[in-house]
Amino acid sequence: MSEGATGLPFEPEPNKRLAMICWSSDLDKVWPVLILGTTAAASGMEVDIFFTFWGLRVLQRNDKRVTGTNLRQKAEAIVDRGGTDHLKLGKINFGGAGTWMIKGLAKDYKVASPTELLGFAIDMGVRLYPCQMTMDLYGLKKEDFVDGIQPSMGAASFLDMAAEADISLFI
Amino acid sequence: MSEGATGLPFEPEPNKRLAMICWSSDLDKVWPVLILGTTAAASGMEVDIFFTFWGLRVLQRNDKRVTGTNLRQKAEAIVDRGGTDHLKLGKINFGGAGTWMIKGLAKDYKVASPTELLGFAIDMGVRLYPCQMTMDLYGLKKEDFVDGIQPSMGAASFLDMAAEADISLFI
Amino acid sequence: MSEGATGLPFEPEPNKRLAMICWSSDLDKVWPVLILGTTAAASGMEVDIFFTFWGLRVLQRNDKRVTGTNLRQKAEAIVDRGGTDHLKLGKINFGGAGTWMIKGLAKDYKVASPTELLGFAIDMGVRLYPCQMTMDLYGLKKEDFVDGIQPSMGAASFLDMAAEADISLFI
Repeated sequence: MSEGATGLPFEPEPNKRLAMICWSSDLDKVWPVLILGTTAAASGMEVDIFFTFWGLRVLQRNDKRVTGTNLRQKAEAIVDRGGTDHLKLGKINFGGAGTWMIKGLAKDYKVASPTELLGFAIDMGVRLYPCQMTMDLYGLKKEDFVDGIQPSMGAASFLDMAAEADISLFI
Repeated sequence: MSEGATGLPFEPEPNKRLAMICWSSDLDKVWPVLILGTTAAASGMEVDIFFTFWGLRVLQRNDKRVTGTNLRQKAEAIVDRGGTDHLKLGKINFGGAGTWMIKGLAKDYKVASPTELLGFAIDMGVRLYPCQMTMDLYGLKKEDFVDGIQPSMGAASFLDMAAEADISLFI
Repeated sequence: MSEGATGLPFEPEPNKRLAMICWSSDLDKVWPVLILGTTAAASGMEVDIFFTFWGLRVLQRNDKRVTGTNLRQKAEAIVDRGGTDHLKLGKINFGGAGTWMIKGLAKDYKVASPTELLGFAIDMGVRLYPCQMTMDLYGLKKEDFVDGIQPSMGAASFLDMAAEADISLFI
């Protein structure tokens, strides 16, 4: 710490910043992204989350089923259903039984669901950015996403944010 | 660098800090967590590791088999055995043959096992924190864990540590 | 910001730095590593990437098939083929159909292939380091790798780089 440009004996501490890449749409990865994001926001941190690759599907509205315009995009949408209500565990899924079991445990212990956490995140000012390149690949459009998110951006913009952040995580 | 509060022309460099989230209990993920943690500690860095989600099982004693109190917790413990002796590869496991092969290679080339590395980490002062929320979900208690770890904590405390760290990783 | 040792009213901003661990050889993980690495380099950042565990196979020449000297090493090389032309999705691979579909989409939308991106990265001065410990495990030698990479190193050297970097990611 040193005497700052303000002439004060200390610099007013700017908000700490957290920048995350949400790369996965697995339930067990999206949960930490949203728990870390909302917890950080509740502690007064500024939070930016970049949703890319599989992770882009997290921002999809739960009532959108088939997305994209060409056949490959539609096929991908069918095997990789989007929306926070449809996330599955990346491990011990057992045809859905494991996911059902873990969701049951979470409910018993009052851990908020990904759908609730996404809503909290938006309400708390967490900035959620869809990746433009992945949108192009999947044929996803602005209207396929939940309300309250930021405009799409690319990897270069995310890197600028991450370089200014105090914590950067790839999840 | 600037003149600091000590009046010296430079601030004595504090120890560098590494903060990691150990999210996985896959052998091939736990190995890097423990190799990075012990290597950093050996270089004089301060190291904090937060064990959460699947990763919490890494801190479980090897002789604990079924954990938790209710049926879902017991079922989860059975399909997801804890303890550093029981970790399996997340890839090319082949019903255990791949894990056996990689463990054999590691032994031939004198790479320490996860169980050895966890012991080294504790001896070197690496701070290992179980996630309280995951403990509640799994029904895991303090006595289910190896000795020498820190008290449980939550995501907010981890974020405070990570914000002060020079390196933050989610593994 | 404060007056620096140069006596100037500001310090000339050194280049921002990105340090990444490429741990995976899954197509869907290697793509973000190489997209982030080349994008950062194009923005003037200095980029260091440490290839370890499964990720070491990314640096392998596409025309090397069986590597290593002992049986276990050869077996591992057969089930885990290296080289950027042979990467497979970690999810919805469907015996190669999913990988083919996503590669097709990427081509349609002019996303560069991992092989092209690895070449760009080297041309742009991104520093690519193979992990010495993993080389020993796999029995991989310098001549098994593509040209233009850095000498091998260990975890301690990577941690030194990451501690100086503005962004550190484990992918």
